[in-house]
Parts: sequence; C-alpha cells; structure tokens
Amino acid sequence: MATLSVPSQVPPPSEDADQLRKAFGGWGTNEGLIISILTHRNAAQRKQIRQAYADLFGEDLLKALDKELTRDFERVVLIWTLDPPERDALLAYESAKKGSPSDRALIEIACTRTSDELLLIRKAYHARYKRSFEEDVAAHTKENFRKLLVPLVSALRYEGPEVNASLANSEAKLLHGKIAEKAYSDEEVIRILTTRSKAQLLATFNEYNNDFGNPISKDLKADPKDEFLSALRAVIKCFTYPEKYYEKIIRLAINKMGTDEGALTRVIATRAEVDMKLIKDAYYKRNSVPLERAIKKDTTGDYEDFLLALIGQDDA
Amino acid sequence: MATLSVPSQVPPPSEDADQLRKAFGGWGTNEGLIISILTHRNAAQRKQIRQAYADLFGEDLLKALDKELTRDFERVVLIWTLDPPERDALLAYESAKKGSPSDRALIEIACTRTSDELLLIRKAYHARYKRSFEEDVAAHTKENFRKLLVPLVSALRYEGPEVNASLANSEAKLLHGKIAEKAYSDEEVIRILTTRSKAQLLATFNEYNNDFGNPISKDLKADPKDEFLSALRAVIKCFTYPEKYYEKIIRLAINKMGTDEGALTRVIATRAEVDMKLIKDAYYKRNSVPLERAIKKDTTGDYEDFLLALIGQDDA
Repeated sequence: MATLSVPSQVPPPSEDADQLRKAFGGWGTNEGLIISILTHRNAAQRKQIRQAYADLFGEDLLKALDKELTRDFERVVLIWTLDPPERDALLAYESAKKGSPSDRALIEIACTRTSDELLLIRKAYHARYKRSFEEDVAAHTKENFRKLLVPLVSALRYEGPEVNASLANSEAKLLHGKIAEKAYSDEEVIRILTTRSKAQLLATFNEYNNDFGNPISKDLKADPKDEFLSALRAVIKCFTYPEKYYEKIIRLAINKMGTDEGALTRVIATRAEVDMKLIKDAYYKRNSVPLERAIKKDTTGDYEDFLLALIGQDDA
Repeated sequence: MATLSVPSQVPPPSEDADQLRKAFGGWGTNEGLIISILTHRNAAQRKQIRQAYADLFGEDLLKALDKELTRDFERVVLIWTLDPPERDALLAYESAKKGSPSDRALIEIACTRTSDELLLIRKAYHARYKRSFEEDVAAHTKENFRKLLVPLVSALRYEGPEVNASLANSEAKLLHGKIAEKAYSDEEVIRILTTRSKAQLLATFNEYNNDFGNPISKDLKADPKDEFLSALRAVIKCFTYPEKYYEKIIRLAINKMGTDEGALTRVIATRAEVDMKLIKDAYYKRNSVPLERAIKKDTTGDYEDFLLALIGQDDA
C-alpha cells in the first residue's frame, strides 16, 4: 500500500553517498540527482546512506542537505531522509511547542503509528530533546486538550485482535450518554479513547452506530467550529479510516488559498512508505481528480518533483 | 546495594532444574533444597533455570512450584522466581484490579523502576493480560486517583541528568501555591509529578524546601487521613528516598496486628536484587532492631527462611 518504489538493484550505500556528495559540488546543486536517489530508497537504506556519508565525508548528510537546499524543497528532503522515529519526534516536537489546537501532527502520531513505533518515537524524543514527549505536550497544552493529548501520546495500546463484546456495548452506551449531555471532555470519554485497543474501539464505534443509528463522528459534529470536537473526530478517524483522514488533510492543504505546504509535506513524507496508495485512491474518489494532477497544479519545481516521486509519479 | 548473594560457581541451569525436580519428588517436598537454589540465583539465572526445566520436563517450573507449595511460602517463591518485568506486571495487575487507594504497588512500580523497566513491564502486561496496564488502571480508578495514576504508569520519563534551574524555581512556586490553596489534585500538580524527569523533580523539591522552609512532603500532611495526600507523599518519597519509603512499608507490615505478608513479600522479593542493603540500613536506623531479627520474630518456617536468605541472612 506504499507508493515508494525502490529499484530491484540498489547501489551500495557508499556509492549513493558519493553521488549525493557530487550533487552538492561543482557549479550549483544537482537537485535532480538528489531526488532520483533519495525518493527511491526505503527507510533502512536511507539510514545506511546517512551512515556511509558520515563515514566517508565526516559530515552529517542532513547538515549537508540543509546547507545546499532551501524552502519547501529543503523541508521535504530533510523530513523524508530522517529515520521515521526521529522524523516523528521532530514533527511531535514542533507540534507540541506550537500547542495549537488545530494542529494535527500530535493526533496523527499518537493514533496512526503502532504501539512499538510510538515507543521508538518517544525514545528518539528523549535523545533529541533531553525531555519526554508527554512532558512537552503537557507543558504546552491545557484543560481539555491536555486531558486528551497527554494520555493519547503516552499510551502503549494493546494490539491484539481480542474484542470484548459486552464491554463494547456498555462503552458505546456510555459514550452516547456523555455526548448527549455534551460532556465531550468527560473523563470517561477520554479514558475510553486513550486506553482501549484499536480493535476494541472499532467494536465500540460499530456498536454505537448499530444502537443509536448514527456514526459517533456525526454526533460529534454538534458545533462544527468547536476545536475540541474537531480533535475528537480526528482521533476517531485516525483509528477507523486513516486513509480518509489523510485524504482530507491533503485536500484542505491543496484547496487552501495558498497551498499549506507544511501539511502536504508532512502527510506525503510520513505515508509514502506506509499507505499512500490507499490515500491516493481515497483522494481520487473524493475529488474526481488524481492526486498527481492536483499536486502538479499546486506546486512547482524541485518540491513538486520530489512529492511526485514519493507518490510514485516520476519517470524513474 | 543488593542483598542477593550468588555463589562464585553456579551450576549449569539444567543441573539446578534437575535438583528442583528432585526436591518435588519422593516423600514430601524438600523445601530446604528449593530455598537454597532459588534464593541464590539472579534474575537471568532464574530465567535460564525456568527454561531448562521446561525443556527437560515439559512443564513450567512455576506451575510445578504452585502445585508443591502453599500459602505465604508459595507466594514468595513464585513472586521471586518470576522474571522481574513479568513479576511487576503481575503485581500491577493485582493492584490495578483491586483499585484500593491505599494499595502502593502501582506507585512503587511507576516511580521506582527505570523508564526502560517500566516499558518492559507494560509489554509483559500486554502479553499476560491481553490489555494494557494503563487501560486497567484507568478502568478501576476514578477522579483524583485516576488523574494521578494513569499518567504515572504511562510515563516514559527522560532520565538524563540535565536540570533546568529556572523551571525548578517556577514549578516549586507553582506547587507551593496549589498546596497552599489545598488544590492537591490540580492539573498542574499532576502534570509536574507525572511528566518531569526525576533529576528535575529533585531540583524542584529542593528549591521548594529552600524557598518555603519546609519539605514539600511535610506540607502535604495537612490531613493525615486523606488517602490522596498520602498517595502524593508516596510518589514523592519513591522519587527522593526510595529506601526510606520501602523501610516504612516493611515497618508497617511487621508492626501490624498480624503481619502483612503481602507487603513484606512484595518489598523483599522486588528489592533483594536492587537496593535491599540500603533498605536494611534504613530499617536499623529507624527501628534500632536489625531487619533480620524483626523478620525472625514475625514469620515462621520456610517463609521465614526464604525471606532471610533473600536479605542475605542464611547459612548458604
């Protein structure tokens, strides 16, 4: 379901590192060469290239890229080249610091990564920032958002397939009751969303739909401008239909007056190796325009080429 | 600082397994043999013995022990023999299920284990109970205790030595203000205690003592019967003086009308390999009686022998 394409014969990491070094030298940077290498290597291969680059030239590849590139292109290259847990730690840090209720990176990281991935991110956060992820989230949020986000990023959810049907039933009722009272940040609502396994939550949401005739997300739309309700819907959508969740983030980023490159870069760089094919399908279904065409219309130059390569639309 | 003593020449695990098998056979169980082996093997060695036992006899050693032994002796042998993360997962599970405000196992596990140990415990919890640790804690607590315990058991605290002095200063003031208002479960109090690194917390508590002339624990004694205040003091003591914290648990377990074997077993089995020497010193200082003598007075038989061996007072 990834869109990343890796050639069947990949050069040794030292050769890739050497090519990248050449792309930085001479008269101006050879962006095409950088794109053709980095967009066709998986996470393990990129890590090896970074290691080989450090061994050969005594410099961190990311520092070198940072010196050579600029703006949106620089950002997507750096974000993409980082090892996924480090990349997510960086996105988490930026988002936690911002503390903006409408920022979605924290919710994505907490709800679409596996339990083990989230752990690696929390460890990378320690190494990079000398603090814990939950510590920064707690320090930069308050009230309802803190109540939701701190346990969300601290969870180590059970990932087995077991479902307790009677629990799904009772917790669906409990959620419905709280939503009917508009007690959206009630501690029981938070407890259920932040601690139950994904399998259990899906059963609970299905039960909710069956018993009350509406998907829970719809009942959480009482006030479309309420930022907290919107965060709850994002949590639920990340659990239930991550590809639809991401489709919407891309759609809003592209349809915005002046593209939201931050969101576009984040989604494509974090999903190209995971489920970008499904997101592309969802995008086409929802917009009747292929994602490639929408990106071509909205972006330019090396940044455009890099994004297109990551979603599988270059000539490599 | 451990009291566990391991002989310089340890027999191969298969020989230990074989000896244990012999201790179970024949006319009645040979408890002395069980004690002499198990109380002189470290966690890695006990794990190997359990593996060897399963390989040789097709049975889990813990099941065999369970069949052969009874009561307090059985409990301490099982708790001790378990691999530490599994053992803590079991203690955590029992404590979470009980949901008793005065139960201290959850606080001990959350506050005296390292971040990596707590992670292993959470993973062992998944494997053993098909749920997450925080999920059970959240489901069996409410209000103030839930607000404190869920983030406490979910934290992955940063463990570096870095301390931010101005943060220690501002958070000491913040804690003092909340305590003065008796807002003990205020979300800022909970945030500080559940997310800051231990090094940072110690700096904050020292600053508190310097600025306000009282240790924070003392200011949290306003109402000695308040269970929540008592839990907050336990958290702080586990961070600052774990050996004094454990000394008190042992003292209360022994001085109780009818010894509290549950607490005594838990502390000795979980600390013999960690800091039991310091706890023994603290016990002698506080009670003017060596812990060995107190245990001899209060316990009997194989249970007594096992505890004494774990704290370094057998003839082996």
